[in-house]
Amino acid sequence: MRGYSQDKDAYLKRLRRIEGQVRGLQRMVDTDVYCIDVLTQVAAVTRALQSVALGLLEDHLSHCVTEAVAQGGPEGEQKVREAAEAVSRLVKS
Amino acid sequence: MRGYSQDKDAYLKRLRRIEGQVRGLQRMVDTDVYCIDVLTQVAAVTRALQSVALGLLEDHLSHCVTEAVAQGGPEGEQKVREAAEAVSRLVKS
Amino acid sequence: MRGYSQDKDAYLKRLRRIEGQVRGLQRMVDTDVYCIDVLTQVAAVTRALQSVALGLLEDHLSHCVTEAVAQGGPEGEQKVREAAEAVSRLVKS
Amino acid sequence: MRGYSQDKDAYLKRLRRIEGQVRGLQRMVDTDVYCIDVLTQVAAVTRALQSVALGLLEDHLSHCVTEAVAQGGPEGEQKVREAAEAVSRLVKS
Repeated sequence: MRGYSQDKDAYLKRLRRIEGQVRGLQRMVDTDVYCIDVLTQVAAVTRALQSVALGLLEDHLSHCVTEAVAQGGPEGEQKVREAAEAVSRLVKS
Repeated sequence: MRGYSQDKDAYLKRLRRIEGQVRGLQRMVDTDVYCIDVLTQVAAVTRALQSVALGLLEDHLSHCVTEAVAQGGPEGEQKVREAAEAVSRLVKS
Repeated sequence: MRGYSQDKDAYLKRLRRIEGQVRGLQRMVDTDVYCIDVLTQVAAVTRALQSVALGLLEDHLSHCVTEAVAQGGPEGEQKVREAAEAVSRLVKS
Repeated sequence: MRGYSQDKDAYLKRLRRIEGQVRGLQRMVDTDVYCIDVLTQVAAVTRALQSVALGLLEDHLSHCVTEAVAQGGPEGEQKVREAAEAVSRLVKS
């Protein structure tokens, strides 16, 4: 069980949609679509990925981090630090 | 011909690699990989997409915008404004 | 007491440094420094602000959220949701 | 003369406003305002800075880059590459 397990099907559906969007980008490049239109679509795919990341992070905080903290002990602290580092990678990506 | 046409094969290769990474994300979610490891990989895919976008933008400036500007007239100005708006969407995505 | 109270002096020092950098930007613009050099410095100030935000967030998770969760009850859940929304605003800013 | 010279007063006004916002952040931290409210305000300042950056970039493209390109020769190409690198720093900041 992971933080996202309850919503697994929804995440898989969103990731398959993103996969389709990336294939759409290949078709755009392959058929010489205008650069700016390709860029607009790249930005849309990036936003869709960021949105998946934010969902996974919220699920992780609500389940994994919350449970570790509720049990007390050093694991809670470690999970919080680990989550903060993940946020840092998201903000910089 | 588009700004990216000279490097079309390289872009297609990068986009196919990104498609493979998105399929990899689906496998990670499907096999209950730890949330933080999924997030790290989502951040990697996002960076790969941003890098494609920056390449496309540079090609667009070097070719489409440069040519429109060199010909003089209002089209140069319009292309510059359009490119600036595309940058704005990238920064906000 | 807030999550950041223990490091208040360090945060104030960082924010005063950022204030100085913003005044530096005004001098750059006022003395007609080259656009690209101004942009490089704007990016540096933005990174400094993001770094303050990431620090505040980690402190918030380590203290406020952790304490609310450890006490059990609905407040823990609410704090987690609130923190996730703050992350979302950071990623989009 | 720089790309932003025509709008210098407007940029100075925006940067002074941002300086005031950074001082406001210091007051918030100094008076123990709730972490999430500080974070929301940090995100607002970051967006204001990004918006200044996007304005400077558009002015730079419309003036400095356009003029270098219109004159022909290698300087146009160099200006385009330099602008693309500045965009890359903005996207990653």
